[in-house]
Amino acid sequence: MKKAKHGGNIYEIAQRLSIKKEEIIDFSANINPLGVPKSFKKALVENMDVIENYPDPEYNTLIEDIATYHGLEKEYITVGNGATEVIFSMISNLKPKKSLILAPTFLEYERALLRSGSYVNYYYLKEENNFQVDEQFLEAIDEKLDLVVICNPNNPTSQLIGREEMTKILECCKKKNINLMIDEAFTDFVDDPNSVSMMPFIKDYDNLYIIKALTKFYALAGLRIGYGITVNVNLLEKIKDHKEPWTINSYAAMAGMVLKDKDYIKESRAWILSERAYFYDALKKIDKIKVYKPASNYILFQLLNEKKDIREALLQKKILIRSCNNYKNLDPSFYRIAIKNREQNEKFINAFKEVLYEG
Amino acid sequence: MKKAKHGGNIYEIAQRLSIKKEEIIDFSANINPLGVPKSFKKALVENMDVIENYPDPEYNTLIEDIATYHGLEKEYITVGNGATEVIFSMISNLKPKKSLILAPTFLEYERALLRSGSYVNYYYLKEENNFQVDEQFLEAIDEKLDLVVICNPNNPTSQLIGREEMTKILECCKKKNINLMIDEAFTDFVDDPNSVSMMPFIKDYDNLYIIKALTKFYALAGLRIGYGITVNVNLLEKIKDHKEPWTINSYAAMAGMVLKDKDYIKESRAWILSERAYFYDALKKIDKIKVYKPASNYILFQLLNEKKDIREALLQKKILIRSCNNYKNLDPSFYRIAIKNREQNEKFINAFKEVLYEG
Repeated sequence: MKKAKHGGNIYEIAQRLSIKKEEIIDFSANINPLGVPKSFKKALVENMDVIENYPDPEYNTLIEDIATYHGLEKEYITVGNGATEVIFSMISNLKPKKSLILAPTFLEYERALLRSGSYVNYYYLKEENNFQVDEQFLEAIDEKLDLVVICNPNNPTSQLIGREEMTKILECCKKKNINLMIDEAFTDFVDDPNSVSMMPFIKDYDNLYIIKALTKFYALAGLRIGYGITVNVNLLEKIKDHKEPWTINSYAAMAGMVLKDKDYIKESRAWILSERAYFYDALKKIDKIKVYKPASNYILFQLLNEKKDIREALLQKKILIRSCNNYKNLDPSFYRIAIKNREQNEKFINAFKEVLYEG
Repeated sequence: MKKAKHGGNIYEIAQRLSIKKEEIIDFSANINPLGVPKSFKKALVENMDVIENYPDPEYNTLIEDIATYHGLEKEYITVGNGATEVIFSMISNLKPKKSLILAPTFLEYERALLRSGSYVNYYYLKEENNFQVDEQFLEAIDEKLDLVVICNPNNPTSQLIGREEMTKILECCKKKNINLMIDEAFTDFVDDPNSVSMMPFIKDYDNLYIIKALTKFYALAGLRIGYGITVNVNLLEKIKDHKEPWTINSYAAMAGMVLKDKDYIKESRAWILSERAYFYDALKKIDKIKVYKPASNYILFQLLNEKKDIREALLQKKILIRSCNNYKNLDPSFYRIAIKNREQNEKFINAFKEVLYEG
């Protein structure tokens, strides 16, 4: 099992190009361009000395904020150093022998499963189906499985499974005694999050595990804060017993407050609804690529009939995009780009056209 | 393997007593009372937005600062979310079958060893020997061992192994093909750190692993930043392959700069040399306790011929101390207290006398 390459490594790129990382427009990491909520920055300045003490090992304040936001009991919640810690700790304590994940999908599920000794099955999403999960997926949910992991919307495809379909998947898993882990890290960005999130099903399905993060929607990627929700309190107890203490630092432990920042949430919703439509339409007009209609804050596209390394070409214009070369079931012609603010999205469109048509 | 109880949980205490945590003087966590270095707070304010991006997955700046400070090559260094992540990741990748630790010692070594499936031997330190490691320890280093873990100065005893003795231990381990992990989290507090630290031996011993943290000396307990040093680069490569990404957050990744804060280091050295002598002398005068001469920034003492729960009694005076009840080889009559600033140490002495003689 090798370390996975993700987007967002502007440090390496800046060093290679001998420029400051601030000069790069980073379309490779899917982060809300509105930036860190002002309310949180104010709290940080006022509580700078909080790092002098060890964090609360129980993270009570953080967990309370999350419980209140979702209207769920505190005991159903576990918090971690980014969604990644939660994914790894849930999987290593669930100890699945055989698991099913999508291909392509976020790389850390596979790493966590292999590290825990699980055999991994892949459900190959079909290009001709725009990489959407289809009805046949239900047939792939074999009784011999212990765990199914789904990212919704999926990363890097930006394709969504609607609630009706997800409910069928959940029911099918329940019937066959299979755990279902749904990573909703990007659900806040979809058109109508409340009609997509499976959070309302948490209490009725003890085989359901939902992963969330503050990383993307609240632009706190560097703070590292994620959480997991399930009514399987036995599992959460096991995680507590096995976990390393204080993995969330004291500044990150304060971050639950962003869930109460209604202005930030409203502004972010307005941004994503407007910019997703704008950026998708602008990209669709470029005839040298196929664009997959995005449900989240990032867009998958494929370069058609071209052998050009457009990531490298865009880098020369200080624009960083995500090559999808290291995702299973995608080849080097696939790329993922984040949706950023209007000015940045426009810059991308112009630079991209230059690279494609003039380069 | 249960979650370990540590000192420093002022959150739980504050809630139980229905007071603010700021009202409690916390002698249970061993943290430099000079507080977070001002140079670091200034950098935080100036770089507040750094959390918007993912941290550098290679943590190059942080590792460079550490390498420069110790005059060692970058490739010998691994960084983690507190010393704890480094301890856990080194042990889980070394995969020792049989290990030896001191009793008593820091609780997380045992947890990490058990989690990795190691059999754990204990070297019981002797009260009559003031819990110091004696010559007989060498005899306990059995050829069947794979790993010896030593905390120096040891926690919670505050007893030191001098370099001459430690070199014998290192040689003995080397000869018997045993790895030696030395946790130097508290070495910066001893009278003359340069004559104690085994860092100069790193390059010549591929069985030597040194753990350090910025937690205690730089009062960054809540920031979570530790590191490990070894010339066993194969192990460091394995750790990289197996680790969860971005476990150190972007603010913590900036913390290497404190190693260059010469004023803070000088002030802290002056504080510990003066306050250790003062506090130890003042405690020695109390005839109802036996005080063990401290080498670090905390003091172990034993309550003599008393059944009183002095932790609880001191809590009523808003002073929190560490009961050593959950350490192997110590009974409920043992307590550990941190050395704080003069005003706080005086408050402790007065409150303690009240509890012992008037209560």
